[in-house]
Amino acid sequence: MRDQVDQLATITVLGVLEQAYFALQVIYARRKYKISPPETTGHPEFERIFRAQANCSEYFPIFISLLWIAGIFFHQGVTVACGLLYLYTRLKYFQGYAVAAQGRLGPMYASALLLWLLLGLAMAGLLAHFLQPLSST
Amino acid sequence: MRDQVDQLATITVLGVLEQAYFALQVIYARRKYKISPPETTGHPEFERIFRAQANCSEYFPIFISLLWIAGIFFHQGVTVACGLLYLYTRLKYFQGYAVAAQGRLGPMYASALLLWLLLGLAMAGLLAHFLQPLSST
Amino acid sequence: MRDQVDQLATITVLGVLEQAYFALQVIYARRKYKISPPETTGHPEFERIFRAQANCSEYFPIFISLLWIAGIFFHQGVTVACGLLYLYTRLKYFQGYAVAAQGRLGPMYASALLLWLLLGLAMAGLLAHFLQPLSST
Repeated sequence: MRDQVDQLATITVLGVLEQAYFALQVIYARRKYKISPPETTGHPEFERIFRAQANCSEYFPIFISLLWIAGIFFHQGVTVACGLLYLYTRLKYFQGYAVAAQGRLGPMYASALLLWLLLGLAMAGLLAHFLQPLSST
Repeated sequence: MRDQVDQLATITVLGVLEQAYFALQVIYARRKYKISPPETTGHPEFERIFRAQANCSEYFPIFISLLWIAGIFFHQGVTVACGLLYLYTRLKYFQGYAVAAQGRLGPMYASALLLWLLLGLAMAGLLAHFLQPLSST
Repeated sequence: MRDQVDQLATITVLGVLEQAYFALQVIYARRKYKISPPETTGHPEFERIFRAQANCSEYFPIFISLLWIAGIFFHQGVTVACGLLYLYTRLKYFQGYAVAAQGRLGPMYASALLLWLLLGLAMAGLLAHFLQPLSST
Protein backbone atom coordinates (compact mmCIF):
# COMPACT_ATOMS: atom_id res chain seq x y z
CA MET A 1 0.00 0.00 0.00
CA ARG A 2 2.78 2.44 0.92
CA ASP A 3 4.43 2.42 -2.51
CA GLN A 4 1.17 3.55 -4.14
CA VAL A 5 0.91 6.65 -1.93
CA ASP A 6 4.46 7.51 -0.79
CA GLN A 7 4.86 10.45 -3.18
CA LEU A 8 1.35 11.70 -2.38
CA ALA A 9 2.24 11.60 1.33
CA THR A 10 5.45 13.57 0.61
CA ILE A 11 3.52 16.32 -1.25
CA THR A 12 0.99 16.39 1.62
CA VAL A 13 3.79 16.94 4.14
CA LEU A 14 5.19 19.72 1.91
CA GLY A 15 1.70 21.26 1.81
CA VAL A 16 1.54 21.18 5.62
CA LEU A 17 4.93 22.91 5.81
CA GLU A 18 3.62 25.62 3.47
CA GLN A 19 0.53 26.09 5.67
CA ALA A 20 2.84 26.37 8.71
CA TYR A 21 4.80 29.11 6.88
CA PHE A 22 1.55 31.00 6.13
CA ALA A 23 0.40 30.68 9.78
CA LEU A 24 3.74 32.09 10.98
CA GLN A 25 3.38 35.10 8.61
CA VAL A 26 -0.01 35.87 10.21
CA ILE A 27 1.60 35.75 13.68
CA TYR A 28 4.43 38.10 12.52
CA ALA A 29 1.87 40.50 10.99
CA ARG A 30 -0.13 40.46 14.25
CA ARG A 31 3.02 41.48 16.14
CA LYS A 32 4.05 44.11 13.55
CA TYR A 33 0.68 45.88 13.67
CA LYS A 34 -0.14 45.00 17.30
CA ILE A 35 -3.41 43.25 16.40
CA SER A 36 -4.13 40.75 19.17
CA PRO A 37 -6.49 37.78 18.80
CA PRO A 38 -9.46 37.53 18.56
CA GLU A 39 -9.19 40.71 16.43
CA THR A 40 -8.98 40.05 12.67
CA THR A 41 -8.96 43.64 11.41
CA GLY A 42 -6.96 46.82 12.08
CA HIS A 43 -4.47 47.34 9.24
CA PRO A 44 -4.81 46.70 5.47
CA GLU A 45 -1.59 44.67 5.22
CA PHE A 46 -2.57 42.46 8.17
CA GLU A 47 -6.05 41.96 6.68
CA ARG A 48 -4.58 40.88 3.33
CA ILE A 49 -2.16 38.43 4.99
CA PHE A 50 -4.98 37.13 7.23
CA ARG A 51 -7.31 36.60 4.25
CA ALA A 52 -4.52 35.02 2.17
CA GLN A 53 -3.87 32.48 4.94
CA ALA A 54 -7.61 31.85 5.46
CA ASN A 55 -8.08 31.24 1.73
CA CYS A 56 -5.12 28.82 1.53
CA SER A 57 -6.42 26.96 4.62
CA GLU A 58 -9.87 26.68 3.08
CA TYR A 59 -8.48 25.13 -0.11
CA PHE A 60 -6.04 22.82 1.68
CA PRO A 61 -8.51 19.93 2.29
CA ILE A 62 -9.89 20.26 -1.25
CA PHE A 63 -6.35 20.09 -2.67
CA ILE A 64 -5.42 17.08 -0.49
CA SER A 65 -8.64 15.22 -1.46
CA LEU A 66 -8.06 15.70 -5.19
CA LEU A 67 -4.33 14.94 -4.87
CA TRP A 68 -4.94 11.54 -3.28
CA ILE A 69 -7.84 10.50 -5.55
CA ALA A 70 -6.00 11.56 -8.73
CA GLY A 71 -2.81 9.89 -7.44
CA ILE A 72 -4.51 6.60 -6.55
CA PHE A 73 -6.91 6.33 -9.51
CA PHE A 74 -5.02 8.15 -12.29
CA HIS A 75 -1.22 8.26 -11.90
CA GLN A 76 0.94 9.10 -8.90
CA GLY A 77 3.81 10.77 -10.79
CA VAL A 78 1.66 13.07 -12.96
CA THR A 79 -0.45 13.99 -9.91
CA VAL A 80 2.60 14.81 -7.82
CA ALA A 81 3.91 17.15 -10.55
CA CYS A 82 0.57 19.01 -10.54
CA GLY A 83 0.63 19.06 -6.75
CA LEU A 84 4.09 20.64 -6.64
CA LEU A 85 3.01 23.31 -9.14
CA TYR A 86 -0.13 23.97 -7.05
CA LEU A 87 1.93 24.52 -3.88
CA TYR A 88 4.20 26.89 -5.84
CA THR A 89 1.23 28.95 -7.14
CA ARG A 90 -0.15 29.12 -3.56
CA LEU A 91 3.18 30.51 -2.33
CA LYS A 92 3.11 33.14 -5.12
CA TYR A 93 -0.55 33.88 -4.28
CA PHE A 94 0.28 34.44 -0.61
CA GLN A 95 3.31 36.62 -1.32
CA GLY A 96 1.44 38.62 -3.98
CA TYR A 97 -1.62 39.14 -1.74
CA ALA A 98 0.63 40.30 1.14
CA VAL A 99 1.89 43.16 -1.09
CA ALA A 100 -1.40 44.15 -2.76
CA ALA A 101 -4.88 42.65 -3.39
CA GLN A 102 -4.19 42.76 -7.16
CA GLY A 103 -1.01 40.75 -6.64
CA ARG A 104 -3.01 37.66 -5.73
CA LEU A 105 -4.90 37.43 -9.05
CA GLY A 106 -2.35 35.81 -11.40
CA PRO A 107 -1.29 33.01 -9.01
CA MET A 108 -4.95 32.60 -7.94
CA TYR A 109 -6.00 31.80 -11.52
CA ALA A 110 -2.99 29.48 -11.92
CA SER A 111 -3.83 27.64 -8.67
CA ALA A 112 -7.50 27.32 -9.72
CA LEU A 113 -6.41 25.91 -13.09
CA LEU A 114 -4.25 23.30 -11.34
CA LEU A 115 -7.14 22.30 -9.06
CA TRP A 116 -9.40 21.85 -12.11
CA LEU A 117 -6.62 19.79 -13.72
CA LEU A 118 -6.35 17.57 -10.61
CA LEU A 119 -10.16 17.27 -10.65
CA GLY A 120 -9.99 16.20 -14.32
CA LEU A 121 -7.29 13.61 -13.54
CA ALA A 122 -9.33 12.28 -10.59
CA MET A 123 -12.46 11.97 -12.74
CA ALA A 124 -10.54 10.36 -15.62
CA GLY A 125 -8.96 7.88 -13.20
CA LEU A 126 -12.31 7.00 -11.62
CA LEU A 127 -13.98 6.66 -15.04
CA ALA A 128 -11.23 4.31 -16.27
CA HIS A 129 -11.55 2.31 -13.04
CA PHE A 130 -15.34 1.92 -13.31
CA LEU A 131 -15.22 1.04 -17.05
CA GLN A 132 -12.43 -1.54 -16.60
CA PRO A 133 -14.69 -4.52 -15.68
CA LEU A 134 -16.86 -3.82 -18.74
CA SER A 135 -13.95 -3.74 -21.20
CA SER A 136 -12.31 -6.85 -19.74
CA THR A 137 -15.39 -9.01 -20.34
CA MET B 1 -7.55 -1.36 -2.56
CA ARG B 2 -9.31 0.75 -5.21
CA ASP B 3 -12.53 -1.31 -5.21
CA GLN B 4 -12.99 -0.69 -1.47
CA VAL B 5 -12.90 3.09 -1.90
CA ASP B 6 -13.96 3.85 -5.49
CA GLN B 7 -17.46 5.03 -4.52
CA LEU B 8 -16.08 7.05 -1.59
CA ALA B 9 -13.66 8.73 -4.01
CA THR B 10 -16.55 9.52 -6.37
CA ILE B 11 -18.58 11.17 -3.60
CA THR B 12 -15.47 13.10 -2.54
CA VAL B 13 -15.04 14.43 -6.10
CA LEU B 14 -18.75 15.40 -6.11
CA GLY B 15 -18.20 17.20 -2.79
CA VAL B 16 -15.27 19.12 -4.30
CA LEU B 17 -17.45 20.12 -7.27
CA GLU B 18 -20.07 21.42 -4.82
CA GLN B 19 -17.42 23.44 -2.96
CA ALA B 20 -16.27 24.87 -6.30
CA TYR B 21 -19.89 25.92 -7.01
CA PHE B 22 -20.10 27.65 -3.59
CA ALA B 23 -16.76 29.43 -4.15
CA LEU B 24 -18.00 30.71 -7.54
CA GLN B 25 -21.19 32.08 -5.91
CA VAL B 26 -19.03 34.10 -3.47
CA ILE B 27 -17.06 35.51 -6.43
CA TYR B 28 -20.31 36.45 -8.25
CA ALA B 29 -21.68 38.09 -5.05
CA ARG B 30 -18.42 40.06 -4.68
CA ARG B 31 -18.85 41.39 -8.23
CA LYS B 32 -22.58 42.12 -7.79
CA TYR B 33 -22.06 44.21 -4.64
CA LYS B 34 -18.56 45.48 -5.57
CA ILE B 35 -16.96 44.05 -2.40
CA SER B 36 -13.28 43.49 -3.17
CA PRO B 37 -10.99 41.17 -1.16
CA PRO B 38 -9.83 41.30 1.56
CA GLU B 39 -13.22 42.85 2.53
CA THR B 40 -15.74 40.31 3.89
CA THR B 41 -18.59 42.67 4.76
CA GLY B 42 -20.60 45.39 3.00
CA HIS B 43 -24.01 43.97 2.02
CA PRO B 44 -26.32 41.55 3.90
CA GLU B 45 -26.76 39.20 0.91
CA PHE B 46 -23.01 39.02 0.32
CA GLU B 47 -22.40 38.37 4.04
CA ARG B 48 -24.92 35.50 4.05
CA ILE B 49 -23.38 33.92 0.93
CA PHE B 50 -19.87 34.42 2.36
CA ARG B 51 -20.82 32.79 5.70
CA ALA B 52 -22.68 29.95 3.94
CA GLN B 53 -19.55 29.14 1.94
CA ALA B 54 -17.28 29.47 4.99
CA ASN B 55 -19.52 27.10 6.98
CA CYS B 56 -19.61 24.50 4.18
CA SER B 57 -15.80 24.73 3.82
CA GLU B 58 -15.37 24.25 7.56
CA TYR B 59 -17.48 21.09 7.56
CA PHE B 60 -15.93 19.67 4.36
CA PRO B 61 -12.93 17.94 6.04
CA ILE B 62 -15.18 16.61 8.83
CA PHE B 63 -17.58 15.17 6.26
CA ILE B 64 -14.75 13.62 4.20
CA SER B 65 -13.16 12.07 7.32
CA LEU B 66 -16.41 10.46 8.47
CA LEU B 67 -17.31 9.38 4.91
CA TRP B 68 -14.08 7.44 4.43
CA ILE B 69 -14.02 5.85 7.90
CA ALA B 70 -17.68 4.81 7.72
CA GLY B 71 -17.16 3.57 4.16
CA ILE B 72 -14.06 1.53 4.97
CA PHE B 73 -15.11 0.16 8.38
CA PHE B 74 -18.92 -0.06 8.07
CA HIS B 75 -20.25 -0.36 4.50
CA GLN B 76 -19.36 1.56 1.34
CA GLY B 77 -22.85 1.53 -0.26
CA VAL B 78 -24.78 2.69 2.82
CA THR B 79 -22.14 5.37 3.50
CA VAL B 80 -22.28 6.65 -0.07
CA ALA B 81 -26.08 7.00 0.16
CA CYS B 82 -25.69 9.11 3.34
CA GLY B 83 -22.93 11.10 1.64
CA LEU B 84 -25.11 11.93 -1.36
CA LEU B 85 -27.93 13.07 0.95
CA TYR B 86 -25.45 15.20 2.92
CA LEU B 87 -24.23 16.96 -0.24
CA TYR B 88 -27.88 17.60 -1.21
CA THR B 89 -28.71 19.12 2.22
CA ARG B 90 -25.58 21.33 1.95
CA LEU B 91 -26.79 22.62 -1.46
CA LYS B 92 -30.21 23.42 0.05
CA TYR B 93 -28.49 25.06 3.06
CA PHE B 94 -26.40 27.27 0.79
CA GLN B 95 -29.33 28.25 -1.42
CA GLY B 96 -31.59 28.86 1.59
CA TYR B 97 -28.95 30.95 3.42
CA ALA B 98 -28.36 33.06 0.26
CA VAL B 99 -32.05 34.12 0.35
CA ALA B 100 -32.47 34.62 4.13
CA ALA B 101 -30.71 33.57 7.38
CA GLN B 102 -33.86 31.62 8.38
CA GLY B 103 -33.71 29.68 5.12
CA ARG B 104 -30.55 27.88 6.25
CA LEU B 105 -32.13 26.27 9.34
CA GLY B 106 -34.05 23.29 7.92
CA PRO B 107 -31.24 22.00 5.68
CA MET B 108 -28.70 22.77 8.46
CA TYR B 109 -30.49 20.43 10.87
CA ALA B 110 -30.79 17.78 8.12
CA SER B 111 -27.07 18.03 7.31
CA ALA B 112 -26.17 17.80 11.02
CA LEU B 113 -28.37 14.71 11.35
CA LEU B 114 -26.58 13.06 8.42
CA LEU B 115 -23.17 13.86 9.94
CA TRP B 116 -24.26 12.26 13.24
CA LEU B 117 -25.51 9.26 11.23
CA LEU B 118 -22.13 8.97 9.45
CA LEU B 119 -20.43 9.28 12.85
CA GLY B 120 -22.64 6.46 14.16
CA LEU B 121 -21.82 4.25 11.17
CA ALA B 122 -18.09 4.98 11.60
CA MET B 123 -18.22 4.11 15.31
CA ALA B 124 -20.28 0.97 14.66
CA GLY B 125 -17.83 -0.12 11.97
CA LEU B 126 -14.81 0.48 14.21
CA LEU B 127 -16.46 -1.32 17.14
CA ALA B 128 -17.26 -4.34 14.97
CA HIS B 129 -13.68 -4.32 13.68
CA PHE B 130 -12.10 -4.21 17.16
CA LEU B 131 -14.45 -6.88 18.57
CA GLN B 132 -13.87 -9.26 15.63
CA PRO B 133 -10.65 -10.90 16.94
CA LEU B 134 -12.31 -11.60 20.29
CA SER B 135 -15.36 -13.30 18.79
CA SER B 136 -13.31 -15.38 16.35
CA THR B 137 -11.27 -16.99 19.11
CA MET C 1 -5.61 -2.62 5.20
CA ARG C 2 -7.98 -1.95 8.13
CA ASP C 3 -5.54 -3.17 10.81
CA GLN C 4 -2.92 -0.66 9.68
CA VAL C 5 -5.28 2.30 10.15
CA ASP C 6 -7.91 1.26 12.73
CA GLN C 7 -6.39 3.29 15.56
CA LEU C 8 -5.85 6.30 13.27
CA ALA C 9 -9.53 6.07 12.30
CA THR C 10 -10.51 5.97 15.98
CA ILE C 11 -8.49 9.12 16.77
CA THR C 12 -10.03 10.80 13.71
CA VAL C 13 -13.54 10.01 14.99
CA LEU C 14 -12.54 11.41 18.42
CA GLY C 15 -11.26 14.55 16.67
CA VAL C 16 -14.60 14.92 14.87
CA LEU C 17 -16.44 14.60 18.21
CA GLU C 18 -14.22 17.35 19.62
CA GLN C 19 -15.00 19.60 16.64
CA ALA C 20 -18.73 18.90 17.19
CA TYR C 21 -18.32 20.00 20.84
CA PHE C 22 -16.60 23.25 19.73
CA ALA C 23 -19.35 23.94 17.15
CA LEU C 24 -22.02 23.47 19.83
CA GLN C 25 -20.23 25.96 22.12
CA VAL C 26 -20.39 28.57 19.33
CA ILE C 27 -24.15 27.94 18.96
CA TYR C 28 -24.66 28.31 22.74
CA ALA C 29 -22.58 31.54 22.76
CA ARG C 30 -24.69 32.89 19.84
CA ARG C 31 -27.85 32.25 21.90
CA LYS C 32 -26.37 33.68 25.12
CA TYR C 33 -25.35 36.96 23.49
CA LYS C 34 -28.16 37.01 20.87
CA ILE C 35 -25.73 37.18 17.93
CA SER C 36 -27.52 35.74 14.91
CA PRO C 37 -25.75 34.45 11.78
CA PRO C 38 -24.27 35.79 9.55
CA GLU C 39 -22.97 38.11 12.32
CA THR C 40 -19.58 37.07 13.75
CA THR C 41 -19.01 39.97 16.17
CA GLY C 42 -20.93 41.67 19.01
CA HIS C 43 -19.48 40.51 22.35
CA PRO C 44 -15.86 39.78 23.38
CA GLU C 45 -16.66 36.34 24.84
CA PHE C 46 -18.54 35.28 21.71
CA GLU C 47 -15.70 36.57 19.52
CA ARG C 48 -13.13 34.56 21.48
CA ILE C 49 -15.23 31.37 21.30
CA PHE C 50 -15.90 31.97 17.58
CA ARG C 51 -12.16 32.47 16.84
CA ALA C 52 -11.20 29.47 19.01
CA GLN C 53 -13.54 27.26 16.99
CA ALA C 54 -12.39 28.76 13.67
CA ASN C 55 -8.75 28.14 14.60
CA CYS C 56 -9.39 24.52 15.63
CA SER C 57 -11.35 23.92 12.40
CA GLU C 58 -8.51 25.39 10.34
CA TYR C 59 -5.97 23.05 11.93
CA PHE C 60 -8.21 19.95 11.80
CA PRO C 61 -7.29 18.90 8.20
CA ILE C 62 -3.59 19.58 8.90
CA PHE C 63 -3.75 17.41 12.02
CA ILE C 64 -5.61 14.60 10.21
CA SER C 65 -3.14 14.65 7.29
CA LEU C 66 -0.09 14.39 9.57
CA LEU C 67 -1.78 11.80 11.80
CA TRP C 68 -2.44 9.42 8.91
CA ILE C 69 0.95 9.86 7.21
CA ALA C 70 2.88 9.45 10.48
CA GLY C 71 0.66 6.49 11.41
CA ILE C 72 1.11 4.70 8.08
CA PHE C 73 4.79 5.47 7.44
CA PHE C 74 6.24 5.72 10.97
CA HIS C 75 4.29 3.84 13.67
CA GLN C 76 0.59 3.67 14.42
CA GLY C 77 0.83 3.39 18.23
CA VAL C 78 3.30 6.26 18.75
CA THR C 79 1.30 8.44 16.36
CA VAL C 80 -1.96 7.70 18.14
CA ALA C 81 -0.42 8.72 21.50
CA CYS C 82 0.65 12.08 19.97
CA GLY C 83 -2.80 12.43 18.40
CA LEU C 84 -4.55 11.93 21.75
CA LEU C 85 -2.29 14.53 23.39
CA TYR C 86 -2.97 16.96 20.52
CA LEU C 87 -6.75 16.61 20.97
CA TYR C 88 -6.31 17.23 24.71
CA THR C 89 -4.24 20.41 24.12
CA ARG C 90 -6.90 21.62 21.65
CA LEU C 91 -9.61 21.15 24.31
CA LYS C 92 -7.50 23.14 26.81
CA TYR C 93 -6.84 25.79 24.12
CA PHE C 94 -10.57 26.17 23.44
CA GLN C 95 -11.53 26.33 27.12
CA GLY C 96 -8.70 28.75 27.91
CA TYR C 97 -9.53 31.03 24.96
CA ALA C 98 -13.22 31.10 25.99
CA VAL C 99 -12.20 32.61 29.35
CA ALA C 100 -9.48 35.04 28.14
CA ALA C 101 -7.25 35.56 25.07
CA GLN C 102 -4.18 34.92 27.26
CA GLY C 103 -5.65 31.58 28.36
CA ARG C 104 -5.15 30.15 24.89
CA LEU C 105 -1.35 30.63 24.80
CA GLY C 106 -0.03 27.69 26.86
CA PRO C 107 -2.16 25.00 25.20
CA MET C 108 -1.55 26.68 21.79
CA TYR C 109 2.22 26.24 22.13
CA ALA C 110 1.70 22.64 23.33
CA SER C 111 -0.57 21.85 20.37
CA ALA C 112 1.92 23.44 17.94
CA LEU C 113 4.72 21.35 19.46
CA LEU C 114 2.68 18.17 18.97
CA LEU C 115 1.97 19.09 15.34
CA TRP C 116 5.72 19.62 14.73
CA LEU C 117 6.33 16.25 16.42
CA LEU C 118 3.78 14.54 14.15
CA LEU C 119 5.43 16.30 11.18
CA GLY C 120 8.81 14.97 12.32
CA LEU C 121 7.42 11.42 12.66
CA ALA C 122 5.82 11.67 9.21
CA MET C 123 9.09 12.87 7.64
CA ALA C 124 11.13 10.21 9.47
CA GLY C 125 8.69 7.52 8.32
CA LEU C 126 8.79 8.71 4.71
CA LEU C 127 12.58 8.98 4.76
CA ALA C 128 12.93 5.43 6.11
CA HIS C 129 10.49 4.22 3.45
CA PHE C 130 12.35 5.87 0.57
CA LEU C 131 15.78 4.73 1.80
CA GLN C 132 14.65 1.12 2.32
CA PRO C 133 15.17 -0.09 -1.29
CA LEU C 134 18.70 1.33 -1.27
CA SER C 135 19.74 -0.40 1.94
CA SER C 136 18.23 -3.75 0.94
CA THR C 137 20.30 -3.98 -2.26
